[in-house]
Amino acid sequence: MKIEVLKENLKNGLSVVEKVISGKNLSLPVLDNVLISTEESFLNLSVTDLETAIKVWILVKILKKGRVAVPAKFLSNFISLLPEEKITLEERKQGLYIECKNFKNQVQGVNPEEFPIIPKFNDLESLSFDSKSLWQGLTQVVDIASPSQSRPEISGAYFVFSKNSLKIVATDSFRLAEKNINLESPVEREISFILPQKPARELMNILDGKEGKIKIYFSPNQTMFELPMKEVEHPQIQVISRLIEGEYPNYEEIVPKKFKTHVIVKRDEFINQVKAASLFSGKINEVKIKVNVGAKELGISAQDPDIGESNSSIPAKIEGEDIEASFNHKFLIDGLLNIKSSEVVFDFSKEEGPCVLKPVGDASYLYVVMPIKST
Amino acid sequence: MKIEVLKENLKNGLSVVEKVISGKNLSLPVLDNVLISTEESFLNLSVTDLETAIKVWILVKILKKGRVAVPAKFLSNFISLLPEEKITLEERKQGLYIECKNFKNQVQGVNPEEFPIIPKFNDLESLSFDSKSLWQGLTQVVDIASPSQSRPEISGAYFVFSKNSLKIVATDSFRLAEKNINLESPVEREISFILPQKPARELMNILDGKEGKIKIYFSPNQTMFELPMKEVEHPQIQVISRLIEGEYPNYEEIVPKKFKTHVIVKRDEFINQVKAASLFSGKINEVKIKVNVGAKELGISAQDPDIGESNSSIPAKIEGEDIEASFNHKFLIDGLLNIKSSEVVFDFSKEEGPCVLKPVGDASYLYVVMPIKST
Repeated sequence: MKIEVLKENLKNGLSVVEKVISGKNLSLPVLDNVLISTEESFLNLSVTDLETAIKVWILVKILKKGRVAVPAKFLSNFISLLPEEKITLEERKQGLYIECKNFKNQVQGVNPEEFPIIPKFNDLESLSFDSKSLWQGLTQVVDIASPSQSRPEISGAYFVFSKNSLKIVATDSFRLAEKNINLESPVEREISFILPQKPARELMNILDGKEGKIKIYFSPNQTMFELPMKEVEHPQIQVISRLIEGEYPNYEEIVPKKFKTHVIVKRDEFINQVKAASLFSGKINEVKIKVNVGAKELGISAQDPDIGESNSSIPAKIEGEDIEASFNHKFLIDGLLNIKSSEVVFDFSKEEGPCVLKPVGDASYLYVVMPIKST
Repeated sequence: MKIEVLKENLKNGLSVVEKVISGKNLSLPVLDNVLISTEESFLNLSVTDLETAIKVWILVKILKKGRVAVPAKFLSNFISLLPEEKITLEERKQGLYIECKNFKNQVQGVNPEEFPIIPKFNDLESLSFDSKSLWQGLTQVVDIASPSQSRPEISGAYFVFSKNSLKIVATDSFRLAEKNINLESPVEREISFILPQKPARELMNILDGKEGKIKIYFSPNQTMFELPMKEVEHPQIQVISRLIEGEYPNYEEIVPKKFKTHVIVKRDEFINQVKAASLFSGKINEVKIKVNVGAKELGISAQDPDIGESNSSIPAKIEGEDIEASFNHKFLIDGLLNIKSSEVVFDFSKEEGPCVLKPVGDASYLYVVMPIKST
């Protein structure tokens, strides 16, 4: 193999694939490597951790076909230090010889035959939609999933394509987030799957808020997200992941539909007051929220005999009755941070029942949080 | 005690003193607290770790004199979450009652009588000089000192006031940094002391590049740095530290005066090439530098059988003979990062002898580094 590539393009490609590399994979060291291979007039960079694979294509000048496998993070660190010039990559002595301006370097590699085969997705059912909406949805949902050995089905993000919408859901059984994304064209049949949290995060990092289209391919045990290359008709990035087996819990049952008390408060002020109270909440992380209809305010309090006591209040628009409930402050903060509107809805279903946080004027997102039961 | 203070002022004061607090001081929990006391028309905040003490004064409205001691980091975290308004602090139940807009909080404290006494510096010899120069010097020197149990005298920064200059020196026996600061008025007699690394770093963080004057007070076992308050004639911040006992090594002996080879190269390019080579240097961290008079360049190389090999070169202005030496790449990088000029001098005294890095056009700083002896 021998190719010429611009430093910037190689660096960008490596920065995408290196994310899936954990570092020192002691049980299977080959997984620390990136497989670099020529493909038509492209250079392909592939990595896998056997659950998630990422493939990136870069436009290069191919002088000789071939492939090599070298440590991915090492190569990415090294390439980023090179001058902004043309780089020559050449297969030498089961490794990669790299020349760039006044740099001449030899990087030891492994036998590319040892690199795991990454499944291909050909002629499968697929769907194209807006990548920025998907990114936005993932940022609001993905971190809620919980790595649970006893309940693997809630350790990922649940995707449901139905009619004109994609729902993305995650829960750790204490709270649940649901995001609704409009599809441009309706799906013919309902399709759902559970994507593990790690590839969902990789995908979120790769999308990174950029405008564009993303294509998703469906197969029974795997899924693939594909970003197209701008200049030519060719994929630029593919994220391929196995899916989590099992049935996702019937989460819609626990989303309350009726509310005893409906509250609207300013988001930033509420976050600050919960954070302040959290400092006084001690090891149990409990803050108390008290809706006071008469005073038109939400009271936030916490106490611990060793630390002290916190009481604060925030003006609120309230419909319904006085109610109070205690929450783990981390769960409240997580939900509030996922909401970007300046005002936030806080709905109480009943005493000790689930509550809902959602943005004012945006029906696409909701966050359900369970209060701490009083003892 | 009862006082009124603006949130911003209290927050700024706490952010200075909390730096000396390690967090959870298990052996002497009282040291996690800040002593808050009224002093004339000021509020004084004091902390100490028994080696270093920091005192800060804030202009406040005093309603009732007194003092309290409460956890410093906790208070700082909490105050920063309050709205930008007037805060009332009041002594209550061996703790601090804090009221600000719609916040009412009680923070548990400790008995202020248990707080260690911080020494006073009255009528001692003192000297005033430019605080930005001191900050600059500390940033270039302080990190080189090494916490050495067997040689405590090199675990701090050595200050020497002599005639019109202050020298600040630090070494870990592998490398040495010296900064020369001009004094506005000459000192009458030479004064020197070894300041421990921690208070030197605190001082650096407090000065933070800001313009102004700093006053230093000398006593046999301690020293005090004092920043004045702008509005009134009163100290704003005092950093008081014990000094390290013992004789500082006669470091001037190891600074080479004559050079076999004198090299000038571009700083940023040199840093990048050493960083690139360092990736290939393996566990011994060794990079080889080769001065090539004929080619007018500096060669940088490193290799490791498991990783590969790196060779690069950088154009250089050279006076003298061909020479080569190997270095720990970390020591080279540390020195280069402390030099801010676009070109850097790299002087070789003799085969395997100490080398000197210094900025081009600035005689106030030098960095001596020992090569790795060839085996």
